[in-house]
Amino acid sequence: MQEIAIIQPALAAWELQNKRLVSLINSLTDDQLSREITTGKNTGHYLLGHLVAVSDGMLPLLGINDRLFPELTTIFIQNPDKSGLEKTPISTLKTQLQAVNQHLSAGFATHSASNWLGRHTAVSEADFEKEPHRNKLNLLHNRTNHLAYHLGQMALLKA
Amino acid sequence: MQEIAIIQPALAAWELQNKRLVSLINSLTDDQLSREITTGKNTGHYLLGHLVAVSDGMLPLLGINDRLFPELTTIFIQNPDKSGLEKTPISTLKTQLQAVNQHLSAGFATHSASNWLGRHTAVSEADFEKEPHRNKLNLLHNRTNHLAYHLGQMALLKA
Repeated sequence: MQEIAIIQPALAAWELQNKRLVSLINSLTDDQLSREITTGKNTGHYLLGHLVAVSDGMLPLLGINDRLFPELTTIFIQNPDKSGLEKTPISTLKTQLQAVNQHLSAGFATHSASNWLGRHTAVSEADFEKEPHRNKLNLLHNRTNHLAYHLGQMALLKA
Repeated sequence: MQEIAIIQPALAAWELQNKRLVSLINSLTDDQLSREITTGKNTGHYLLGHLVAVSDGMLPLLGINDRLFPELTTIFIQNPDKSGLEKTPISTLKTQLQAVNQHLSAGFATHSASNWLGRHTAVSEADFEKEPHRNKLNLLHNRTNHLAYHLGQMALLKA
């Protein structure tokens, strides 16, 4: 019980950042989201796709599910904003974000505390023995901060 | 032991974001830090002061120490960037950040897992009974994400 209480704030932090992201993208028009954060930097559209793709990638890393939208990886992770690749439309990305977050929440609900301290699937068993801090909880923290980092940037699109 | 292992990733995440902040501000010139992130928004200078002031405020909230630099609150938390108040110079803020982080790290080292699950000092005992999630660990998560949020903005100052 105590152990789960210690995990709880990390899950709450993840949910809070996602709630803020959803609230932000719903408050911005597609036109606003299509703009660069500042001259020459990423657009809100690219950052939204990037965040959906990174969250989607958490599903296999945490052993919950395969990626739901593997096609996002090429467009929004492996290539930069100005790659010339056709971007998944903003409205589609919003729906995909919802689906990914639902799968993550369902998966989190089944994770025990000791599960959170286990390795994520990008770390080999041998490496995990040497670097036991590379566990699932650590991944969740890093992804939450990654989300907050880009959320701070996207918030600059507000008038 | 297990409980401390669960706290460890949260502390590592805090340290990582701070390391990135220090690395970023050392890579930017004072001239770059003095610029607005994007037209009409906060300057890097204000955001740096804001982050130092907020981290300094964690010392009393976590029961570690009084604020080291209480004068920062008025300039960088209670008032906006264009308040007309004279700002603490960037070089001073860099030194203050180091001092605050050293005090926080020393304080963290003495926190047990059950201590992290205790209330922080901005929550009354009565409120904490109703809202037990408002504990110190939760505060640490929120402050780490707050740091990441503004770090994402300050990173836009890079050429």
